Order: sequence, then structure tokens, then C-alpha cells
Amino acid sequence: MSVRCPLMFLLSFMTLTYNPDVGAQEQRSANRWEREFRSIPDTARLREYMRRLSARPHHLGSTYGKENAEWILARFKEWGWNVQIESFQVLFPSPRERVVELMQPVKFAAALNEPVVTEDPSSLQQQEQLAAYNAFSIDGDVTAPLVYVNYGIPADYEQLGRMGISVRGCIVIARYGASWRGIKPKVAAEHGAVGCLIYSDPRGDGYFHGATYPDGPWRPPNGVQRGSVMDMPLHPGDPLTPGVGATEQAKRLPLNEAKTLTAIPVLPISYADAQPLLSALSGRVAPEHWRGALPITYRIGPGPAKVHLGVRSNWNMVRLYNVIARMEGSTHADQWVIRGNHHDAWVNGAEDPVSGLVAMMEEARGLGALAKRGWKPRRTIIYCAWDGEEQGLFGSTEWVEAHADELRGHAALYINTDSNGRGYLSMAGSHSLEKFINDVAKEVEDPEKRISVWKRRQLFDIESTSSAEERNELRQRADLRIDALGSGSDYTAFIDHLGIASLNLGYGGEDGGGIYHSIYDTFRWYTQFSDTSFVYGRALAQMAGSAVVRFAEADLMPFEFSNSSEALRKYLEELKKLASGTRDQIIERNLQLEEGVFEATADPREAMVSPIREEVPPFLNFAPLENALATVEQSAHRYREESARFVESGKRLPPVINRKLLQTERSLTHPDGLPERSWFKHQIYAPGFYTGYGVKTMPAVREAIERKAWKDADQQIVRLASVLEAYAFAIDAATNELTSARR
Amino acid sequence: MSVRCPLMFLLSFMTLTYNPDVGAQEQRSANRWEREFRSIPDTARLREYMRRLSARPHHLGSTYGKENAEWILARFKEWGWNVQIESFQVLFPSPRERVVELMQPVKFAAALNEPVVTEDPSSLQQQEQLAAYNAFSIDGDVTAPLVYVNYGIPADYEQLGRMGISVRGCIVIARYGASWRGIKPKVAAEHGAVGCLIYSDPRGDGYFHGATYPDGPWRPPNGVQRGSVMDMPLHPGDPLTPGVGATEQAKRLPLNEAKTLTAIPVLPISYADAQPLLSALSGRVAPEHWRGALPITYRIGPGPAKVHLGVRSNWNMVRLYNVIARMEGSTHADQWVIRGNHHDAWVNGAEDPVSGLVAMMEEARGLGALAKRGWKPRRTIIYCAWDGEEQGLFGSTEWVEAHADELRGHAALYINTDSNGRGYLSMAGSHSLEKFINDVAKEVEDPEKRISVWKRRQLFDIESTSSAEERNELRQRADLRIDALGSGSDYTAFIDHLGIASLNLGYGGEDGGGIYHSIYDTFRWYTQFSDTSFVYGRALAQMAGSAVVRFAEADLMPFEFSNSSEALRKYLEELKKLASGTRDQIIERNLQLEEGVFEATADPREAMVSPIREEVPPFLNFAPLENALATVEQSAHRYREESARFVESGKRLPPVINRKLLQTERSLTHPDGLPERSWFKHQIYAPGFYTGYGVKTMPAVREAIERKAWKDADQQIVRLASVLEAYAFAIDAATNELTSARR
Repeated sequence: MSVRCPLMFLLSFMTLTYNPDVGAQEQRSANRWEREFRSIPDTARLREYMRRLSARPHHLGSTYGKENAEWILARFKEWGWNVQIESFQVLFPSPRERVVELMQPVKFAAALNEPVVTEDPSSLQQQEQLAAYNAFSIDGDVTAPLVYVNYGIPADYEQLGRMGISVRGCIVIARYGASWRGIKPKVAAEHGAVGCLIYSDPRGDGYFHGATYPDGPWRPPNGVQRGSVMDMPLHPGDPLTPGVGATEQAKRLPLNEAKTLTAIPVLPISYADAQPLLSALSGRVAPEHWRGALPITYRIGPGPAKVHLGVRSNWNMVRLYNVIARMEGSTHADQWVIRGNHHDAWVNGAEDPVSGLVAMMEEARGLGALAKRGWKPRRTIIYCAWDGEEQGLFGSTEWVEAHADELRGHAALYINTDSNGRGYLSMAGSHSLEKFINDVAKEVEDPEKRISVWKRRQLFDIESTSSAEERNELRQRADLRIDALGSGSDYTAFIDHLGIASLNLGYGGEDGGGIYHSIYDTFRWYTQFSDTSFVYGRALAQMAGSAVVRFAEADLMPFEFSNSSEALRKYLEELKKLASGTRDQIIERNLQLEEGVFEATADPREAMVSPIREEVPPFLNFAPLENALATVEQSAHRYREESARFVESGKRLPPVINRKLLQTERSLTHPDGLPERSWFKHQIYAPGFYTGYGVKTMPAVREAIERKAWKDADQQIVRLASVLEAYAFAIDAATNELTSARR
Repeated sequence: MSVRCPLMFLLSFMTLTYNPDVGAQEQRSANRWEREFRSIPDTARLREYMRRLSARPHHLGSTYGKENAEWILARFKEWGWNVQIESFQVLFPSPRERVVELMQPVKFAAALNEPVVTEDPSSLQQQEQLAAYNAFSIDGDVTAPLVYVNYGIPADYEQLGRMGISVRGCIVIARYGASWRGIKPKVAAEHGAVGCLIYSDPRGDGYFHGATYPDGPWRPPNGVQRGSVMDMPLHPGDPLTPGVGATEQAKRLPLNEAKTLTAIPVLPISYADAQPLLSALSGRVAPEHWRGALPITYRIGPGPAKVHLGVRSNWNMVRLYNVIARMEGSTHADQWVIRGNHHDAWVNGAEDPVSGLVAMMEEARGLGALAKRGWKPRRTIIYCAWDGEEQGLFGSTEWVEAHADELRGHAALYINTDSNGRGYLSMAGSHSLEKFINDVAKEVEDPEKRISVWKRRQLFDIESTSSAEERNELRQRADLRIDALGSGSDYTAFIDHLGIASLNLGYGGEDGGGIYHSIYDTFRWYTQFSDTSFVYGRALAQMAGSAVVRFAEADLMPFEFSNSSEALRKYLEELKKLASGTRDQIIERNLQLEEGVFEATADPREAMVSPIREEVPPFLNFAPLENALATVEQSAHRYREESARFVESGKRLPPVINRKLLQTERSLTHPDGLPERSWFKHQIYAPGFYTGYGVKTMPAVREAIERKAWKDADQQIVRLASVLEAYAFAIDAATNELTSARR
């Protein structure tokens, strides 16, 4: 799994790194280790690691997956790390029966098979490949009329409603894109569908974009995107052990009580298999933005296409193998800097996840080399190669749940990577780390352009936006704005469940392709079409590794809360705009209903249902949130002033201060979690309940407004305000200690 | 030919028609004739006229074209009109040789043939059909590498430049759309191309939108859009007699001095013929918004596809037959109300132009019937069925040029129609007629919704815009804003060459299809897929006929200059925004060049050329235009007040006032015409030099700014200001007469 979000970023004309935390000499010494570290990562090694790790299919529970874990363990040992495998037992359904047949108006049986590509030996390993399927689809066998539902997200069903089309009792066919895949069967089931097909339209990642594999990087006609469809916005990790580590002796739910399995059977198919089904639909022509790149008239149905869909899985328990390596801190061993990337793949996974994993391994080798040359990191460093990410972030989630108490006490930050490509740095995560990671990015060189990866990203963003206001910010602000984290990779449990400040890093934008989660994500594909010379793999190791070294060495942990308060301000303004925009929209629609707009503009030759009159929403009371945010802004300002004064004072930093800082992100969680999904504790960042990957910031309030649950929204505003007050209080606690220590 | 422009419109809560021009009794009498008129048009007759007129191919110079003219003449006679055929002799190249072959990397010969559809007898008349070609392409035979240029408009060549791709010495292939077709070979030749193919991508009007003919209304794989490619933005009409009527004895240019022929050979092809050519291109993948709906990766080339293009025409002189019918005015015979629609087609032309022509004929029958019942229109009414419109507005242009002096003295307005469909009323034309035509639209009933066609359009516009400001205007303003006229039908010579206030009317928006200018534009197509019951044909006759009756009857001609001044204000604001936007854009791009944005964001695997640094434009002096417009606003206001006062006074209106009013639009012309195209005299409206159909308002200034010719822009502002002063003076002349007459 992996998500690359477009980032929204900004710049400064500062060329010096702002580091209020260390004295001049310590700064120089830390800088020396960081610089030395950056010279170590080696593209030839990245290539060889990838060759080895992607040589055979290595999904959760596979022979080669275990061999890879052991090989990674051996490398870490060789590099001087204290390393072990931590294992969990998890539910993992694997494909047993898969049928997709068109029964009417003509017969057609979907091949459901990704053919061998003779140029690519990896594609020949059919014995070890997992067939294309959607893990955690329930078993089922249904025959029903087909309906095309575009991406199958809530807005698409709204549009279907306007067109007078119901999916009740039907099998829906949705194209990949616009949401995490697990949203599609969830929303389909909510609307009464009995089955779900998900296909890769060539508009998304096929010939529409370029030559297809093996001639080019894009998805060939029979390529299929596998992937999990469990209800991850409810909770990730093993469906049988929500909230606790899936150890041997853990208490498990019976399968029929697991909450995150789908409600209806689901299968992914290729565009070669989808075209005959879509061509057999009649009825209304799909709206223009629903149409893909197949040479057909996209129609919605339902029918006359009637489809038989059969899915059965082997509902096995399997063992997962996380590789966990430690380098003990010399002076602040109780403060942990954690770094992770998963090692399991859907098939050979050269891009996903090996391209990120090999960068992490070169970091580990580099840190090991520094240690051999005498470096003793102040803080404890933990490197993790996760298993079972593809099924639902299993390795990281179970580990976080199993070690929750220790992590709450010790974890200072978690840095994640996943697939890596060629192009522009993307940075996402906790905004208290925004300045820190911007500063690191200013030190890493872009291998194509010989300017910093930060500068290249800034210039790209300047070119990409059409807003003069945004360009101004990009040029004036000291830091590029980092994205908030949704979900889609192993940071989820760290940030969302425990409130550990987290970052996700990667490069992309010049590396398109269509082999995601298919048998064509191979060493040949990656080395012919993506970061072929591994220079961005090296740049990723330099970026994440520098961050680890800098954070592990910092006297005062480099959090900067004014960046957080600026992000919070932005989210609050968004919420106010969302509320007033929704209000205006409802007032306008009601007016149009009165004016007769919808009757007047309905084409008598096409069914069209007028929207329903809605009550005009009340104004929400944002005052508690405004007040709380003003408090956070003050606290952030005070911390900033006081920490600068402290550094000037030359006084020795009492360890308690870092322990306080480490807890600040924790204060953004609430023990009850989000409404209806208590596993998600963080109150600022969460994947959307109906987006899956995409973040919803201030999610409890935002999703209440989106649901038009005005009373809930008002209540959640109050709750969120209390969380922000707690955040201000946590920052103040650190500030007060600084003040005392300075006097 | 025919253009349907999206309109920008607005509303009022007024329910009474504002008619300051007639006393209560006269108003009632005029209303009676209008109401009586509207009850006459008959859908069964519209159908029968169409059956007859579209029964056989009837292009300029064809046997059936002449028979149609004679049949129309006979009908007008029968209905009591004084009617004659006015003939001109014009140049008309018809297809003699057409070759399109792919020579490399594989051989393929384009079929260049539209196959018979057995369901549709009209498609069988192959003997009489003109083969698919682009009239006024020069003869030529070239073999060269192929380049895909998207729509082939200037912006596309800018983008090609950025990608480092030149079309010099190549044959370009452009898709239909985004400009009038004649722009494509013109711009291609300006960039050094040696040949031009234009094809109909299924994204434009093929299967992307729905079922193809004969199963549905959209373009079948072998359907081709014929059409003229002469340089009409230079001047329409016979290329050999610019500015004068192409009478027998007219002085003619030798063919090699004609200015409006293309510079390179051009042919239109179907998507069935285009696909093998496009598939044979390699090189860079086309930008996303350049890609159509064929199941291929759209690439730009040049080559390796090499194409042989051969075009030869029979350069014949042919005779065209305009049918001109008059009904003499009873009291103001010297004031002419002119109404027209063309009768020639590319092939059978059921939609283009017969759907509009039959409406005009039902009007003529209706007016004839009124006359038989005793109606004597005050003003002279002239109905015109034009020939040779498809070649370049030949019939109307030559007639206007031949009768220029009389028309300048007598023509009060010209009302045009062309193809008609199902859906929403579109109104375009001179803004002094905006209120008049809005008032008429409030009296005509929409046949699908039983509300006025005005109301339906207003509600549609309210639904279509996302701007609250626009919705507010739509709800508050008394009149929907009408579009300005570009070109593409027979109003061009009236408004642009002579400055006769003009209108263009039609219905559309629920009537998509892909038979435009092909052999499939037939009676069967129209009666199966478009306005199948001819109710919108009747609504068009009611709309245009009511306008004729009302204008012919009005005591004081219903011009309203405050609508004009509001339109002029809008255009001036647009120009100011265009100038400042261009300035900002150049400043920003220069800054980005200094910052190194373009080098930093160029993908090293793809050629990319940085844009060139441009001088920062000076601020333009808009003051002369501001002052002149302020004068127009005052004059418009005074006229409005004074005309209301005059009506109240109950005084008798001296005929001189209408003669003054009739001249007001003339004052918006300038004898020198537009820069580099002196045929176009109107200084407010013109088709764009690089759009062909699309209007450029205040064209001399606007196109100077677009060309970044700042000095020209400043000069043209001064010239335009003097035209507006003259307009104000012309309005004042009418106002002063009203004042004298009232005292």
C-alpha cells in the first residue's frame, strides 16, 4: 500500500537552518555526523537489495516473505544492530474461488488472470503468486443485474439518485480511483447492492497515459489491482483483535463478529475483463466525468447485463514477521526515534514496498557505520520492517497495540516510508514537525537538479498553483506546508491510535505507471521505468536518515508549535467555510426548488428526480474552538520565545523538558476516539470515513458537518476545543520547565 | 453552418412587457396581431417542408439546390409575397482528387468514404453527394512526417514550443473543435506545416457521448465533417469579389490573388481513418487535455508516421440563388425589417439548415395569412432564403455587398436563424435589441414545460452557474444578457460589414448529435433524434415571427441603449482585466525564470524548453475609453428618460426619429474597418482572427492586447473612443428630436 498526496508547500529566503536547540559546538558535532551519514547511502547497494527482496512473490504468510524477514534481520545484525523478529498471528483470507461471468445479454467469462510477460522472468512465478482478489471480501455467490457507479463514492450515489437509478439488489461495477478501494463495497452495500466489482479503467493508469507493460510503465489490458477491502476507517490491523496485539494468547473475536469484513462479495478485475461487461449495459449514458478511456459509450444500466459473481477465500490464520532493530541511546535511552517501512508485498512488489524498504536499509547500514566510527546517538533508535501491511497495516498496528504502554511513554516520533519514485519530495505528518522536516529537506540534494529537494519542491509548487496568494506564501513563508496524514501506510497506528508525532516521506511525480498491486510490479519494471539509477532511493535514505540522526542528537527536541497552530488555524477556517458553504448551498437549493429550476431543466426524455428540500442549517457555535485555538497560539508563541531565550542562556537542559515535549502530541488524542470509531484517538488527523486514504482534519467536527448532523457538530466543537486546551496546557508545561531551568 | 454559443443571461420579476413606444390602443392592436400570428405555425407543415427540402443533396450549384430555391419561391408567392430570385456568380471548388495514405511505418490508405446506412434512404443518394472535403483548400500533393497538434489553435502551438516540437515541413493532424475549422490550416501554415488533416475525435461528437448513427444520434466511425476552410475572419463571401456583389459584370480578382484560400492543402477525415495514423505516431505522449476518446495512447510525433496527402478541386464558377421576398410597409416603407436563413446544405442538411429554414417559412406563411386578414405592417418586411452559406456566407454576403447603399439607408434590423434543435432559447446580437428580444421571449411558450422560453432559459442559467453573483444578476436584472455575435452564419455581413442591428435565434441543449456536415444529417436522423415533433421548430417561428411583427409595428423603434451601455461597460472591464492580467502574468513568468522554476521542474527524460523572458508591458491608457463610455451612458440615460416622457405626452411621433434610431448601430462602424481586415467595419463585435466563430468584442483593442502590441492597443483605444463618441452623438440626435417633438 502507499499513498502519495499532492502537497501544499511554502518557502523562505533563509538559507541558514534554524536550530534553537543546541549550542554552537554541539550543533557542529551533530552537523558533522549528519553530513557524514549522507555520504554513505549507495545506489548500487539499493539495486542489489531490491533484486534480492523482489526476486519472488513475498506476501504475508509466504515462504519468501519469511525468508526476506530473515535476510533483513541478518543484514541488520551484520550492521551492528540489536535485532529480532516479532511475530503475531493474524487472520488472512487467501483466494480459493473466483468467478465473474456475464450471463445476459451474451455469455462471457472473465479471465481473472494476469498473463506472463516473457521479457520479465518475475511474471513467470505463477506458483507463488496470489491470484488477483480483494482480501477481506466476504464469501458469496450472487447473480444480479449490473450497474456502473463511476468511482462508487457517496457523491456518485447522490448523482444516481438524481437520475432515478437504484442499485438495490444489483451488482455494482466501480472504477478504481477517487477513494481507497475499501470504500467502494462499503458504500455499495449501504445502498443495497449485493456484489461489487472494481476495475482499473485505462483512464486511470492504462494506455490513456502511455505505453503499457512490458513496452512502457502503464497497466496492460489484463493487469489487475489486488488489495484489501477491509473497513480500515473503522480500525486497521487484524480484524479479530481490535485494539490489542494479535499475540498467540490474545483474546480473539469469532470471525462472524469481526467488524471490518465487507458486507458483500467483491472482486477486482482488469479492463480487458471489464469491457464486455460495461459494453453490455444499456440505459442512461453516464455523465461526462464518469466516462473512462475504453472505446465504448459508458452507460449506467441497471442491466440488461446480468452478472454472476462468486468469491470464496481460505480463512486461515497466518504468522507475520516484523523485523525490529534497536540502537540504544547513550544519554536519553528512554526517548525513542522510530523508523519503519513494510517488507511484505502483494506479489513481487519491487516498487511497493521494496523501493522504500531498500532506502531504509541503507539508512540502517549508514547508522551502523557511524556507530562503528564512534557515534553514540543520544536517543534510542528503532528501525522496523513491517509485515502484513497490505492486508490492513497488520504488522505495524499489532506491534503498536502490543507495545502501546511503552510507546506512549517513550516514542518521540515515527518516520514512515513506503513506495518511492522519481521526482519531488513529498512530506506529510504532524505539524509540530513541519519546521524540523523542512530544515532537513534544505540539506538534501536533488539528484537530477543539484539543488536541494526542498528548493525543487518549492519551485514546483510555485509553478503548479494558479493562485497569486499561494505563490506569495510559497515565496515568503519559512517552511513549505506539509500535508496532514490520512491513512494508507504504517504511520496510522502511531499517529492515529497513540498520538505519536509522525512523518511520511517519499519522492514522486515523474514516475507514473500502472503496475500497482499486480504481478508486473517487478525488478524489471522498476529498473526500466521508475528510479532506474536509484538516485531517488539514495535521496530518500539521506532525507529520512538525516531526520533520524538530527532528532536523535538534538539537545532540545526540535518541535515547533507555531507551525501546528498555523495548521490548526487553516483547518478551523476550512471548517467555518464548509459550514457556511453548506448553509448557503441548502438555502440556494431550496430557493431553486421554489423557483421550479429542476422541473424546468429536466429533459423530458431522461428521468430526473428533483433534490429534496432540506432544513436550513443553524449557525454553528465556533467560539469554543476560536478561544481554544487562541490559547494554543499564545502557548506556541510563548514556547518559541522561551526556547530561544533558553538557548541563549547557555544553561544545561533538564531531561524533564524533552519528556514533556514528547507528550505534547499525545494531548491531541481523546480516550474515547472519534464518534463511531473509537480506535482512532487523534482529534486533528484521521482518514475520512468515506475516503479511506484521504485525510479529514479535525475529523469529528468536519464529518459531522459533512453528515449535516448539526447538533453533533456543535458538541464535537466543544470536545475538540477541550483537546486544544489540553494541547496548549502540554506546551505550557514544557515552557514552564524551560523558564524555571533558565532562572 | 451554424454556431450555438452558450449564453450568459439574467432575470427580472417584472411580468409586464415594457413597451415605452406605443400608446395603449396601438399597443393592444399590435399585441392582437402578434398573438394571432403565434397561433399560426404548424408542426405538421414544418415536417412536410423538411421532408421536401432535405429529400436530396442540395449544396451550392446542385440541381436540387436550384429546385429548392424555386420551390421556396413558389411557396412565398402562394402566401402572397412579392418574391424573386437574386442570383450571383461565385467561385466554388468541388472535390476532384483526395488521397490520404500512411506511407510509414506501415501502409494504410484512408477510405475517405461515408458508407450507406440501409435504414436511411437519404444516405443512398451517392450520385448527388459532395464527397467529404474542405472547400477552399488549395490544391497540393505532399508527403511528410505527421504531427498531432490537438485542436491546432495558437495555444496548442505555444505548448508544442514548450515541448521543443516543431511542425515545420510536417503534415499536422488536428481534431475538430475549439475553433472554427478554417483556423486550423491557417495557424498550421503560419508555423511552417505543409499539409493539414482535420478529424472528428469520438470525444467530440462520437461514441464517447452515446450511440452512433443509425442506432443513436452520434457520429459513426466513418462519418466526416465537411466544411469550408477559407479565411473568413479576413472576409466572408466570394473570394474573388471582396467588398462588392458578385454580379455577372463584377470586377474579379484572378484566382491567384484571392486572399482567403488556404496556404496549404487540407482534408477532413473520420475517426476510423484517423486512428491508424494517430496510432503510428511515437514520441512524446500528448498532454492530458489533448487526448481524445480513441483507445490509443495519444502521441505527438513528429513521425515515424509519414503521410501522403493529395488534394485537387474543380475550381468552377457557379450560380447561387437567393430567394428574396418582400411585404411593403404601409406607413414606413423606407424602414426595413429583414429576416433570413440559408437554404443550401453540405448534403441533405435536415438539421443544417433546414430545421431553421422551415421555421422561417412558417413565419412567412403566417405573415401572409395576417396580411390576408387585413394586417398592414407599418414597415417593409423582407424574408431571405440564402444560398451558398456553407462555402463562406456567399448568398447573404454578396447580397449585402450588392445592396449596401440601400441597406445603409433603410435596414432597421436583421434577424437570422440557422439549425434549430430541442431545449433552451439562445439569443445573440446587438445589445440595443437586448430588451426588445427579451420582451418577445417572455411571450413565447416552451413546448416541453409550458412556461415562457425566457423563463426556462433563466432557470437553466441559474442552475448552470456556480457564481452567487451571477445568480443574483440572473434573478434581479430585467433582461437576460444576450451574447455578442461572432461569425458562422448569415448575420455576419449585416452586422459586421454594414452595422445593421442584428439578432440570431435558436433552440438547443437537449439535442446532441454527430451528423454535422455529413451524409447522415437527414430527415430520418432529425425526426428520430432531434426536435422529433417539431415543437421547437414552431417555437422558433413564434419567436422570430413575433419579433418581426412587433418591430414592424412599433411606433417608436424598440431600441434600448442602456442595455448597450451595460454591455459596453462589461467589455471595457474585461479589457482592463485582460491587460492587467497579461501584465501580471509576464511579471510572474519573468520572476519564475529568474528563480529557475522551469529548469527545476523539467523532467530530464522529456525535452522541455523554458519560456522566453518578455518585456513587462506598459500600463495602457484606458481613459479615452472610460470618458467615451461615460458619455454613452449619459446619452443612453437621456434617451430612456426622454422616450418615456414622449410616450406620456401622447404627441405624434415624427418619422425622422425612427430614421435617426435606425442609424445608431451604423455609428458603431468605422470606414477603415479593423486592423488588417478592413471588410469588418463594426468596432464592437467581430469574429476573432484566431477563433473564427468565437466573438471578440471591442476587437481592435482586444486583439492588440492579445498580440501584446501595446502601442497598437493604445492607438486603438483612442480610435474606439471616437467611435463611442459618435454612438453617443447618434443617440443624442434621436433624443433631441424627441425633445423638440414633445415641446
